[in-house]
Amino acid sequence: MKVIRTINEMQQLALQCKKENKSIGFVATMGYLHEGHRKLLSSARKENDILVASIFVNPLQFGPNEDFERYPRDEEHDEQVAREEKVDVVFIPTVDEMYPMPMSLRLTMARRANVLCGKSREGHFDGVVTVLTKLFHIVLPDRAYFGLKDAQQFAVVDALVEDFNFPIELRGIPTVREQYGLAKSSRNVYLSEEEREKAKYIYQGLQKGQDLIRAGEKRKEIIVNEVSQFIKSYTHGKIDYVDLLTYPKLEDINTVNQRVILAAAVYFNQARLIDNVILEENGDLSFTE
Amino acid sequence: MKVIRTINEMQQLALQCKKENKSIGFVATMGYLHEGHRKLLSSARKENDILVASIFVNPLQFGPNEDFERYPRDEEHDEQVAREEKVDVVFIPTVDEMYPMPMSLRLTMARRANVLCGKSREGHFDGVVTVLTKLFHIVLPDRAYFGLKDAQQFAVVDALVEDFNFPIELRGIPTVREQYGLAKSSRNVYLSEEEREKAKYIYQGLQKGQDLIRAGEKRKEIIVNEVSQFIKSYTHGKIDYVDLLTYPKLEDINTVNQRVILAAAVYFNQARLIDNVILEENGDLSFTE
Repeated sequence: MKVIRTINEMQQLALQCKKENKSIGFVATMGYLHEGHRKLLSSARKENDILVASIFVNPLQFGPNEDFERYPRDEEHDEQVAREEKVDVVFIPTVDEMYPMPMSLRLTMARRANVLCGKSREGHFDGVVTVLTKLFHIVLPDRAYFGLKDAQQFAVVDALVEDFNFPIELRGIPTVREQYGLAKSSRNVYLSEEEREKAKYIYQGLQKGQDLIRAGEKRKEIIVNEVSQFIKSYTHGKIDYVDLLTYPKLEDINTVNQRVILAAAVYFNQARLIDNVILEENGDLSFTE
Repeated sequence: MKVIRTINEMQQLALQCKKENKSIGFVATMGYLHEGHRKLLSSARKENDILVASIFVNPLQFGPNEDFERYPRDEEHDEQVAREEKVDVVFIPTVDEMYPMPMSLRLTMARRANVLCGKSREGHFDGVVTVLTKLFHIVLPDRAYFGLKDAQQFAVVDALVEDFNFPIELRGIPTVREQYGLAKSSRNVYLSEEEREKAKYIYQGLQKGQDLIRAGEKRKEIIVNEVSQFIKSYTHGKIDYVDLLTYPKLEDINTVNQRVILAAAVYFNQARLIDNVILEENGDLSFTE
């Protein structure tokens, strides 16, 4: 496995792969790799000749009061995981390498960003699409893999690729969960034992919503209300939002009449956890293994 | 020569070139091809296996009071020129093909745009970088060729490629001029006989500025003033601007102490003409044949 730290070396390697007609699969991460990342990596491993993973905690996607400084990092562990998942190239640039000077251009979201997590994380998705545009040009992937735990991110990246015609196939990979349903996340390390126990009820609440839709309930108001009540009473966390929107456009609806996302974000003591289910009109999961 | 009208066909052809290890040279145009375009095409022809030219009058880079509707178009002529210049592929998409729905993202200029032509053409360069980002992903060029007549555009594209790490080599090609120095432009068709006669004094004014710098004059104020006076008294056009800035950053200076651009824009009855010289500190031309 190759560890590359400069843009130039990474891009040259990618260009060489193109010349050799080797397909490139890409998993962009902020490191601290867990089972969720492993699943992205193993999916990508199967479908591509060369597997590239990037590890870059992107300052542009953190707000001034967010956890950029204390975001968990463990490069040694990450390289070990990457090796185990048969990654060919790990790209680990520094912040200076990625942003050597103030940018002359701004890439911003005009749709899909101002709901769900985007509402309380101003500029977050602008930072995401900015770093991904750079990474896509540096790694030149044929296919890029993203976890559906960050379903809004996936919707935003979908818009990025569509709007600007990137020659990249996007793959959304279903969320990996702990035994009782808690979605795997690097930020789970911030949870106390007790919180971890309670955090599982976020997913159970979403499942309750899915059950309602399966049973024929179509009114957003009813579904969101039931899920909110459930999560509130079981987790004792502070709910940031529970919402139901079209997917991937993330537009408001009153009635479930197409593919939707039912999503929740809950504040715990040291962490804000998110989870979602993406459902067809009849309540079936849209993305499955 | 192939004429391609869909994004998908163009992108597939470009991807196929990559697989066959063929280099792609790209000239993005708004059509109505003239000597200036021919020079871009012939430069690109020499350095690449496959030469792609796009013809697309991009509505995003025209302001509401600009000449989008009446911008000169002549596809038959353009295809003839392309054939003569040994273009392999002409990409001619419709507006609907390029912008099938409202975009979810916005690409905007935070630097380099708010001076020279950008000052009076709000959003113009946002439209330029947006369409070029799309075209770069559709055509996948190894090298892209731009005329230095639009020197601010070249500076803006330079920032685009730098900021977002496009794997593209940019080539700036010196301005092609009529016999008495008038820069070739599709918009020259808007000029009356008399105006065409006077328009040549724009370039002569810029040359006067170059002579001053060659002779040791370093004060921006003096140089800009002399050039303005010259153009004003000879063209009878209304001067939009005469300015002297660093190049390619387009930052303000008082003293010529690095590479600079000396640029002018002048309104005639039906047209606004631009021209410039890009000069080293000693007054030598920065880009030559």
